[in-house]
Amino acid sequence: MNDCIFCKIVKGDIPSYKIYENDLVYAFLDIACDAVGHTLVVPKKHFTNVLDCDKQYLDAVIEAVQLISRHYVDDCGYEGVNVFNASGKSAQQSVFHLHFHIIPRTGTDGLDMWPLHDTQPMSLEEICKKLAL
Amino acid sequence: MNDCIFCKIVKGDIPSYKIYENDLVYAFLDIACDAVGHTLVVPKKHFTNVLDCDKQYLDAVIEAVQLISRHYVDDCGYEGVNVFNASGKSAQQSVFHLHFHIIPRTGTDGLDMWPLHDTQPMSLEEICKKLAL
Repeated sequence: MNDCIFCKIVKGDIPSYKIYENDLVYAFLDIACDAVGHTLVVPKKHFTNVLDCDKQYLDAVIEAVQLISRHYVDDCGYEGVNVFNASGKSAQQSVFHLHFHIIPRTGTDGLDMWPLHDTQPMSLEEICKKLAL
Repeated sequence: MNDCIFCKIVKGDIPSYKIYENDLVYAFLDIACDAVGHTLVVPKKHFTNVLDCDKQYLDAVIEAVQLISRHYVDDCGYEGVNVFNASGKSAQQSVFHLHFHIIPRTGTDGLDMWPLHDTQPMSLEEICKKLAL
C-alpha cells in the first residue's frame, strides 16, 4: 500500500535496522527504544493484521519469528522471548500492516511483559458457551 | 509428557472449557479469569515453547489462533485480538507446554495489553550489528 510505513520499509524507501529477510518476510528493529532488541516481523505483502492475512504469509511470519527467536537465544545471549501481536484498533494496533513483536528476554532485564494481574468474577461456563466454535 | 498440565487437558484427564480443536491443536479458556474470553491455543503434541516446536505444529497453532480470532471478531462481538506468547522462564513462561494467549478486545474493555511505556537510551545501530542474522 502506498501510504503504509511498513510497506515503505520493506521496499527500502524508508531505512530500517534489518535483522532478517526472506522472500516473504522482513524483520527489523522497532525504533521505539522501549526494550533492547525489540524486533518487528512483517510479511512483505500488505495485510492489515492476523485477521486478514493469508495462510502462506501467516505461516512464513511465525516461522521467521521462530528462526529469529532461536538465533537470539542460541547465538546472542538471550534466555527467552516474548511474542506479541495486536490485531485491530481496539487491540491497540497502531500500524495497520501485520507485525509480530519479539522482545528478547534475560532473567535480569527487569521487564514485566504480562500486563494482566487482576482477576475478576466471571463464569467461564457462560463465556465458553458464547465463544466456543 | 506425563506431568504436563496442558498434556492432561489435551487428553481430557483434566477438564477444560474447550473453544476449538482439530487434529493438531486444542484451544480452551484460561482459568486465570483476568480477561473475559482469555483463550489458550496449544499443540496436542508436547513442545516446551516456540523455540523447540516443529514447523507442522507451529503453523497449525498460528492458523488456529487466526481461526479463533476471526470467529471472535466476526461472530462474537469483539473488535480485535491480542496474541501473546512467552517462551522461556526468563520470558515469564509459567507452563512449559507451548501456548499462545488470545485476548479478545473491545474499545471499551479498559485493558492495556502493551506493557512497554518507557523509552531508554540505546544505539539501534549497535544492537542491529549484534543481533542481525
